[in-house]
Order: sequence, then C-alpha cells, then structure tokens
Amino acid sequence: MSQASNRLDALRATLKQMGVDGFILPRGDEHLGEYVAPCAERLAWLTGFTGSAGMAAVLPDHAAVFSDGRYITQMDQQVDAAAWERLHLRETPPPTWLATHGATMRIGYDPRLISESALRPFVDAGLDLHALPANPVDRIWTDRPAPPCTPCVPQPVQWAGQDSHAKRAHIAEDLRNAGEAAVVLSDPASIAWLLNIRGQDVPYTPLSLCFAIVHDNARVTLLIAPDKVSGETRDWLGQDTTIQPPEALEDALRALAPARVRVDPASNALWFIQILEDAGATVIRKGDPCLLPKAIKNPTEQEGSRRAHLLDGVAICRFLHWLDENATRTAELEAATRLDQFRAASPDYRGESFPAISGAGPNGAIIHYRVIPETDRALQPDEVYLIDSGGQYPFGTTDITRTIWTGPGQPGDDVRDAFTRVLRGHIALARARFPEGVTGHALDALARHALWEGGLNYDHGTGHGIGSYLSVHEGPATISPVFRPVPLMPGMILSNEPGYYRPGAFGIRLENLHLVQPSTIGEAGRQFLEFEVLTLAPFDRRLIDPARMEAGETAWLDSYHARVFERIAPHLDTPARIWLRAACAPLHAG
Amino acid sequence: MSQASNRLDALRATLKQMGVDGFILPRGDEHLGEYVAPCAERLAWLTGFTGSAGMAAVLPDHAAVFSDGRYITQMDQQVDAAAWERLHLRETPPPTWLATHGATMRIGYDPRLISESALRPFVDAGLDLHALPANPVDRIWTDRPAPPCTPCVPQPVQWAGQDSHAKRAHIAEDLRNAGEAAVVLSDPASIAWLLNIRGQDVPYTPLSLCFAIVHDNARVTLLIAPDKVSGETRDWLGQDTTIQPPEALEDALRALAPARVRVDPASNALWFIQILEDAGATVIRKGDPCLLPKAIKNPTEQEGSRRAHLLDGVAICRFLHWLDENATRTAELEAATRLDQFRAASPDYRGESFPAISGAGPNGAIIHYRVIPETDRALQPDEVYLIDSGGQYPFGTTDITRTIWTGPGQPGDDVRDAFTRVLRGHIALARARFPEGVTGHALDALARHALWEGGLNYDHGTGHGIGSYLSVHEGPATISPVFRPVPLMPGMILSNEPGYYRPGAFGIRLENLHLVQPSTIGEAGRQFLEFEVLTLAPFDRRLIDPARMEAGETAWLDSYHARVFERIAPHLDTPARIWLRAACAPLHAG
Repeated sequence: MSQASNRLDALRATLKQMGVDGFILPRGDEHLGEYVAPCAERLAWLTGFTGSAGMAAVLPDHAAVFSDGRYITQMDQQVDAAAWERLHLRETPPPTWLATHGATMRIGYDPRLISESALRPFVDAGLDLHALPANPVDRIWTDRPAPPCTPCVPQPVQWAGQDSHAKRAHIAEDLRNAGEAAVVLSDPASIAWLLNIRGQDVPYTPLSLCFAIVHDNARVTLLIAPDKVSGETRDWLGQDTTIQPPEALEDALRALAPARVRVDPASNALWFIQILEDAGATVIRKGDPCLLPKAIKNPTEQEGSRRAHLLDGVAICRFLHWLDENATRTAELEAATRLDQFRAASPDYRGESFPAISGAGPNGAIIHYRVIPETDRALQPDEVYLIDSGGQYPFGTTDITRTIWTGPGQPGDDVRDAFTRVLRGHIALARARFPEGVTGHALDALARHALWEGGLNYDHGTGHGIGSYLSVHEGPATISPVFRPVPLMPGMILSNEPGYYRPGAFGIRLENLHLVQPSTIGEAGRQFLEFEVLTLAPFDRRLIDPARMEAGETAWLDSYHARVFERIAPHLDTPARIWLRAACAPLHAG
Repeated sequence: MSQASNRLDALRATLKQMGVDGFILPRGDEHLGEYVAPCAERLAWLTGFTGSAGMAAVLPDHAAVFSDGRYITQMDQQVDAAAWERLHLRETPPPTWLATHGATMRIGYDPRLISESALRPFVDAGLDLHALPANPVDRIWTDRPAPPCTPCVPQPVQWAGQDSHAKRAHIAEDLRNAGEAAVVLSDPASIAWLLNIRGQDVPYTPLSLCFAIVHDNARVTLLIAPDKVSGETRDWLGQDTTIQPPEALEDALRALAPARVRVDPASNALWFIQILEDAGATVIRKGDPCLLPKAIKNPTEQEGSRRAHLLDGVAICRFLHWLDENATRTAELEAATRLDQFRAASPDYRGESFPAISGAGPNGAIIHYRVIPETDRALQPDEVYLIDSGGQYPFGTTDITRTIWTGPGQPGDDVRDAFTRVLRGHIALARARFPEGVTGHALDALARHALWEGGLNYDHGTGHGIGSYLSVHEGPATISPVFRPVPLMPGMILSNEPGYYRPGAFGIRLENLHLVQPSTIGEAGRQFLEFEVLTLAPFDRRLIDPARMEAGETAWLDSYHARVFERIAPHLDTPARIWLRAACAPLHAG
C-alpha cells in the first residue's frame, strides 16, 4: 500500500475518533498567507501536492485534491491517483463535490485554517459542518517539523519611513471613532508593517509569524514565541507592546469580551470570530486596517523601492548580457541560479522574493512553472525563454519578468506578433493617465486590448500590489479582470504583467513594477494619476515587430530604454555596457 | 404668496390630516420609468421643476428639491427659492437631509412610487418611515389631468421577430424551474416586449402603461384600461391573456397568495412587495426576467435596427448638408426642428426617441441641455455646435450625436485637440474586440484613454442600451465607470458616446450605436465579440487634427466614412451627395 493510502487511512480513522465523517483541509496556515512554514505544509504531507493554492476533501469512500489551472499538471504528477481524485477548483468546487458525495455526512473543518469568507460556499452548499477542536492531520503527522523560530528583528525607520507609534496612533484613532475596543491582526505582513519588524519564518517573505491585538489606546498585545524576540527587539517594540506567547492567544481574545472587537472575515481565521463570540464579545466584521496604509508607500518606502530597483536592474542587465552569450549553453535551473547570483553581488540582497519561474520553450507556457531538477530543460536555439523573478532588499521588494529569444536565428512571425501585442498592452498600461477613483479593474482592458484585437488573451490578472521588503503579492488593489472596489491611490506599487501562452509551444510575459503618482496634467478640479516605472531592464528587441507598433508606443519604448541605459550603464563593466547600449538603442535605429 | 408656497402649505395640511409630519416625493410614476405621463408629473406640479431626475422632501419647517449635476441650473431657474431649498442629490442626499431636519419625525412616502432598493437609503438613515394609503399630492392637485389613454396596438412579428407565446413560454419555464408561481411586471417596456404591443401613453417611448402578471403556465393577466384595447388587439393578445382594469391589480396580487411570487426589488414599486407579503405570498426578489431577452435583439430586430439606421442616416446626412450651408443662419430650436423634419420625410418615422439636445457654443457644454424658446441661441460663426437626437421607427430606435464646427474659419487648437481625443476614444471602443464575459465597465476606459492622457474626462457614462422600437435608454448592460456585473452579449445594442465639456465654452460628444456581434477571430476555445457600427453619418473633419491620430485610428475612420458614403449616397440628391463625398473622403486626402 502506498504512503498516500496509508496516510489517508490514518486520517479517516482519526476523523472517526473525532466524531466526523469527512474533513476539509485548505493549504494555508493560521495566518492564511501565501507562503507557509514546513510545519504547516499539511496538504503537501497528506497528498504530496506542493502547489501554492489547493485544498483536500476527505470522505469515508472518496478523497479529492483540488487546485486551479496553473497546477493541474503538477497535481497529476505529485498526487497518487489510487488514493485521490485530482480536480479543478473552479470546474468542480469542493463544496459541490462534498454535496455530491457527502450531503448528509458530518464534515469537520479546522476553524484556525479557514476564514469565514472562505467557508461561506460550504455553508451555502448546505453541508453539515463541524468545527474541530484540533487538526486531525496533526494527530497523525508524528514527525511534523517544529514551528519556525527565526529572530524577529527591527525594520529601521530609515527604511520604514514612519515610526511604529505613529502608525499605531492612527489605527487607534480609527478604532475610537468606530467605537471599537480593539482589532485582531493575524496577517504577519500587517503586523510587520505596523510594528516595523521583520523575520525569516517563511520562505521568500521576511515575516515573523505572530498575532497581534491593537487596542484603542494604541497599546499592542503581540503574541509571538518569546525565543524570537531579543532584548533589542523588545526595546524596539517599546513599553506600549505587551509580548505574550502564542498559546495565550485564546485567553487574550476572551479577555476582550464584552467589548466591540474588529475582525476581518477574509484575513482572520474563523476561529477568532468563534472564540470572541463564545466569550461574549461583539464582533465587528471589517477589513484589516493595515491593508490600505501598508499598500500606500510613504516617500521613504518609495525611495527605497527606487534604490532596490536600481540594484535589481543592474543584476538583471548583467544576467541578460550573460544570457545573450550563453543562451544555448544553459538550462532553466542554471539560468535561475545565475540570476540569483547576479543579485547576490549586492550586499543588500536578502534573497528571492518568490521562487523564480524559469521556463524555456513549452515550459514557458506553464504560467506558474517552477523548475525542479526533474523538469529542468536545456535552452534550445531559436526558442522563447521566460524568466519571472524578484529580489528582497531591506528597502524594497522587486518582481520582474522578461521574455527572451535564444537565437541565433530570427523568431517566426507568429511569435513576434504575439510578443508585440503583449508589449503594446504593457505600454498602454504604462502610459495610462487616469482620474482619481479609478480601480485597477477599469484599467485592465488597456493591457489586453492589443491581444484581444488578435483574438488572444491571458488567463491571469494584469497586476498585483507589492510590499516594501514584504510580500511580493500584496492587497488590496489589483489590476484584474475581477472587479474589486479599491481605487488606485498615489504611493501604491503594482505590477504590469500582461502575457500570452501557447500551450506546448511558448510563453510570453512582460512585467515591470509601477508606482502610482499624482499627475501634473489635469484640468482644474480633476486630479489625475499616472505610473512611474520602477523596473529598469530592456525588452528583447529581437521579438518586437516595429511595423506593428503605433508611433506613440515606439516613442514610449525608446524613452524607457534610454532611461534604462542612463541609469544602469554606469554600474556595468565595458562588455555589458556595450551590450546594453545596443539593447536600449531606439527601435528604428537597430 | 406664491403659487409654490400655496401648494406647499396645502400639502403640509394634508400630511397633518394623514398623520405624518413629512413626505418624500420621487419624480417617477407607478412604473418607475424615465418618461411619465402629465397626470404623474407630481414633482413638477408641486415644485415647478421639470427635470427627468429629482425628488422633493417636505417637513413642517423645511422643504427641499434635489436633482443631479445636469439639472442644477434648471432647478435654480424653475424652483421658487422662497419655498424650497435647491440641493444636489449626491452632495446632500435626501436621507441625510431628512435625518438632519426630521430625525424623529414621522415621514410618509407613497409605496407605489418608490422601489424597495430606492427606499433602502432612507431606511438605513434610521428615519421613521410610513407608507401612505394614498398620495397626498393627488388630494390637493384638483385639476390633475386624466391618465393617458392611447390605443394599445400590436407590434407585428414582422418587426418583433418572435411570437409573444414563445417569449411567454420561455419565462414560464424559468418560473417553473425556480418553483415560482408567477412574476409581477410593472415596467411597461418589459410588457411591451413580452406581449408584442406598443402605445403612445408617454412621450418619446411607444409604451402602453399597464401592469402584468405572468403565471408559470404561460398565461398572462394584463392590467390595462380596457378603453386602450381594441378588438384587434384583444385577438392579438390571444386567449392566454386575461385583461383586467388597473383597479383590479391589488386583488390580482392578493389572489396569488400563498404562492412564491417573483418581484424585482429595483423595477417594481415597494407597494407590490407590501401587498403580496400582507396577503401571505412568499416574495422572491429577483430581476425582471424580460430585461435580458429584451436587450438581446433577435435577428429580425437586428435587421430592423439596420434599416432604421439607414433611414436615420439619410435624414442626418441631409440635415448635416443643410446645416453646412446654413450654420450661421439658424438657431438651436430651428436646427432641432429641421432635423425632425428631415426624419419625417420617411413614412416610417414615428417621432423623436427623446427631446433633441441642440446646443451651440456654451449651451453645448450643458450635458442634458434642452433647448426651449427662452434659451434658444443663434448659431454663431466659428463655434462648436452639438446635436444629440434620435428617432423611433416601428423596427428600431436610433440615437446619434454629432458635433459640428459652424465655420467659416478654422477651429482653435484646443478645440481640435479635445475633439480628436473624444474621437480617438470613440474609435478605440468601436474597434474593440473582447472575450465573452467582459462587462461594459471593463471597456469604459478604452473610450476615455485618449482624454485621460490629456488630463480631460467626462462626467457621464460611455454607453447605454437601446430598445427595439422601445426606450432609448434600456438596461441591463451599460458601458460605464460604474461597475455592473452584466457581460456584453451578442445581440445587445449599446451606444458609444464619449464627450468633453468645457463649461461656458463648448461641448463635444460623438455617438454611434453598436450591435454586439460574435467575432470570427479568436483562438480555439475562446469566443470573442466585437461591435458592428449601426449609425451612418460622418464626423466633422474640420474638428479633427490628423496629426494627433494613430495610423490604425485613421484607417478605421476612413473605412467607416467610406461605408457611410456607400450606404447613404444613393438616397441623396446631387448637391447633398457631393457634400457627403467630401465629408467622407479619406482623412489625409482632404
């Protein structure tokens, strides 16, 4: 019997002991974040599936793993079909699957791992749901790693740009105005921003896993493993911060009753609401108050991001130069490693902001491809290579995608057509000026227009927010085909990353980061906004068809390339500078 | 004492008799539509204000009329400031005003004149609201006109394209699938579509005012003044239709209890919900089931619209030719009348689809300007003239806006810049190809992009739906900065009308109607849509700056103008044909 079947059998036995027939296991941890620590990789341990989005559902005679379109292939490779059905999250939503196979059964869930919003479709499907007092996977995962315990360190005001006490005072004032005694934070990125702290508890994002309660007098109860907090950090947090171990969380929540307590039904686990309501507190469901101020970068954070992008741009340009000379003598894994090494030449580099996507030929068409030794592919002559990567610097986070022609021949007309359409979309969004109040959703079509014209499209969003030495994917604003009622505001940093993917053939994505800025152009009484492009690296001119570009688009590209050369060239050695000069020459000159 | 004060005093005395302190009076009638019959012009009778959007609120010591930005000037002219405050609907919403001046007072409202959705903000403001058994204005309006009683006539299948019984069968099936016994319709446009009938009860829209109940067996109870219905129309409606007088409505609703009955909380007055719930029916709140099928024109309706646009285009081109020769020898009112006369040359013309907006110079900047003798302005040499008008034909409804330079000199650079930006936005939307599932909101930025680039914008939507010999403004899809979750679907007809308005100087708006069509271009597995342009009339080349157009935009315009000439020229006399040839010549040739 396979390991997968053994674990599934053990889980079913445990569920029986706990008095339920079935179980829902999401991928996230107690913080509901994107990257989770090894001790919280329950889904991977149980099913083998390591994708960043997924869920398992277990019934006595059925079991299924669900993920989205990005991960269908990976799920098929990793998950034992003898034990598990492998299903598409949207085509067969877990609530529908459970209602089909277990409509009358008692379905358990761990309220610490799912938000009220995420549980809603299961409730609406009429399932007989039961919150479990402990996670049944933890009972059978005997060699489960210990929780991470990395130092929680100060993020100096030199980079954060605002003293934590000023941030807390603002949140506390908001609470008092709303008649709320406290707000519960379980997103470590929100707490990192609020308290100006960072850590290394999860990969790629410099977070310290913890919870916090912010009181209406601006005092903070920080629930964090005491071993993470040095004396220096204690001093940094100040006397207004009470540190308690995570085990004290439930008591700390109960002690808030009977007051009005704010909880975010989307970012806090349902457990918080259940505990507070059980204790007699009045739960006020509202968004995490750190989300918007964290997204609106202050002038220091903006300057830090520019600095990070200069360092990152130098590394990228050195990499692109190296790649130009070695495109057909390398492979996906080596190329990603090389880029990491070019970044590491800067003493400020703190590591990747996410696992680089390094995909050649057909692998580039897998939108969230992650190269591993088993799939590593040598770059072939005359094919398309896509690399999407980012770096963490103590003053900023980067994220950039470039798509390269390996040469030595010329790309075919269909590839150049698709690349030029993606580039035109990228440029249309980059050039956009728009009035205050406009959402990213309203701008999304600008990035797709040229592709749509050719009957092409891409199945992902156009832009996401980026943290300041924090998460590479940050809310609340997005540029997306999905409507979210969040206007773009000055100080927000968002990606601009249209793409095109031809399955089995090639993938194209072109990504820069943009800082939203007030525009000086605009009629009296109308405030307009525009984008400052932060990313500094050329687009591969071999893939551009200049005849398909409008004059204004070419002018934008030439001006952008001129700026890339001006900013990056002084930091390169002569061969790389010569290469960059050619890469950044005006389009109609080359 | 003024007439306004007298009427207000009489209303306050009536309110006291009816046991309330205050009253809310919306502008609409029982059908909540855009155009109302004279007998329902209660707001105009009480306050003097004749705008198409507004509301009055009356308290013992305060009274206010509210309207939106389009009507502030008109409200100030028409409403007696000694009796009424004149307020902006959005700046001082009526619920806020009432909560300020009458928080503890008993506020009456007529549940026949307001929907549950529209009353919601008043409820949320915590007002003490009371549904009145009769409208207090009707008690004091002693010379109130009789309700309109025009013939209700068949709309032949030759134009409607689908038999009423097929339409009813579809709605009935939908009701049965949802377990609903009936749906109540109070929008006469929905009933006109469903039963293939038309009338002349209100101006501009060929409606017969009536209510209907559609049962799950496809039988219809039509509540309409019997005098409107000839024997021929009775036969047309068939034996499946029971005709009752409007007075029987309440009994007909009560007779539905205790079944599940569908009501649209946005298009049905609240009174329907109150009566049904009082009678013990279960009210199912869902959208009017006619809205979507009415918006999706069938092939016959599409062909009818093309025919209407050919007739309309001939009239518009004759008018534009006449205007070209008489631009500085005419005035706003005469020009609008002339256009109506050019349309009336067709025996199929049934009148204007809305009051023409004919604005010269600064009057063009008033977005919903309606020329009356008191404001009539002679067209001056070298100014901008805007005319927005539409026609009703038994097979289609039209709506077109053109903006003309009166000459004989050349327009200034700022006017040409603004016009060219509006035109570029119009063209970007007209050229758009987009995947199935995209809403009009997602396309709205395409029409604004070129204006935004220059720091300009316009404070209205970009597109609205249009009926088939029905309302010139039809839901549910729009192209608007306001998100509505309604995808554009093949068969929908929508306007494309970006604009720009410089207060006190000039107004520009360029409007064509578009039919949504499936595109033949698109990758396998992706269905794309595009627009077929229905409207046939040239754009004034004197106002275009060709140097500011991208090549693709110029190509679109030249191709459109070539089609206009090809379709319209055969119907013109020689002088007009010569004029049209020049007006439609390629941009760089002239």
